[in-house]
Amino acid sequence: MNISHIEHIGIAVNNLEESIKYYEDVLGMKCYAVEEVVDQKVKTAFFLVGTTKIELLESTSPDGPIGKFIEKKGQGIHHIAFAVDDATEALKLAEERGVALVDKVSRKGAEGLNIGFLHPKSTHGVLTELCSKK
Amino acid sequence: MNISHIEHIGIAVNNLEESIKYYEDVLGMKCYAVEEVVDQKVKTAFFLVGTTKIELLESTSPDGPIGKFIEKKGQGIHHIAFAVDDATEALKLAEERGVALVDKVSRKGAEGLNIGFLHPKSTHGVLTELCSKK
Repeated sequence: MNISHIEHIGIAVNNLEESIKYYEDVLGMKCYAVEEVVDQKVKTAFFLVGTTKIELLESTSPDGPIGKFIEKKGQGIHHIAFAVDDATEALKLAEERGVALVDKVSRKGAEGLNIGFLHPKSTHGVLTELCSKK
Repeated sequence: MNISHIEHIGIAVNNLEESIKYYEDVLGMKCYAVEEVVDQKVKTAFFLVGTTKIELLESTSPDGPIGKFIEKKGQGIHHIAFAVDDATEALKLAEERGVALVDKVSRKGAEGLNIGFLHPKSTHGVLTELCSKK
């Protein structure tokens, strides 16, 4: 699996607007996009830090993945996403190496990327996303 | 605050050896250093992914910060560390901007960096480290 860099870090937040304010006013970052991903029931805000994005995630519904995460664990770091050449090929390779998958094939995520998740039970507790431009 | 990039992502694990194996054999990364940080009661393993490090953390004592984290939340992503020019100056600036600090001044961390933590109660649930070479 050819991981080039960390594409983004996903952070679950209670209130997108308040968290954008913290990342901008305290840490001095700049939010460059806000996007709703309807099928994931989230609103997202993006910041670029070096070559990696911070992706803030506010749930739009209590029964979405971020709503459930926050109910169980509170707001905080939700997942890490690695950039690969081809997400579907990388998911297949991970499965061959014994990893349980959340997504068998890649699907469209935020910013038009092809994404898929490995299951945290196979990844030592870290919800891990693989994503690619193709 | 001049954050250049994400210096590392800290991940709490139950067993360093088993997790190194996962990051190497499944994700194809290469562990380039293992180091014990005695005052933090952890053994750490480092991987470089693009310009960011993955820092795996195994507790050497149940009463250390990672031991307590794992007891409460299980293994998983523990903190995010941003690279700044001067960690002590950045901590001071964060405090001026209303952030509660874990460390008032920077101290020596893994790899000889100067590090300090912001308190997650001020950072929307994310344990946040600032670190610098000087």
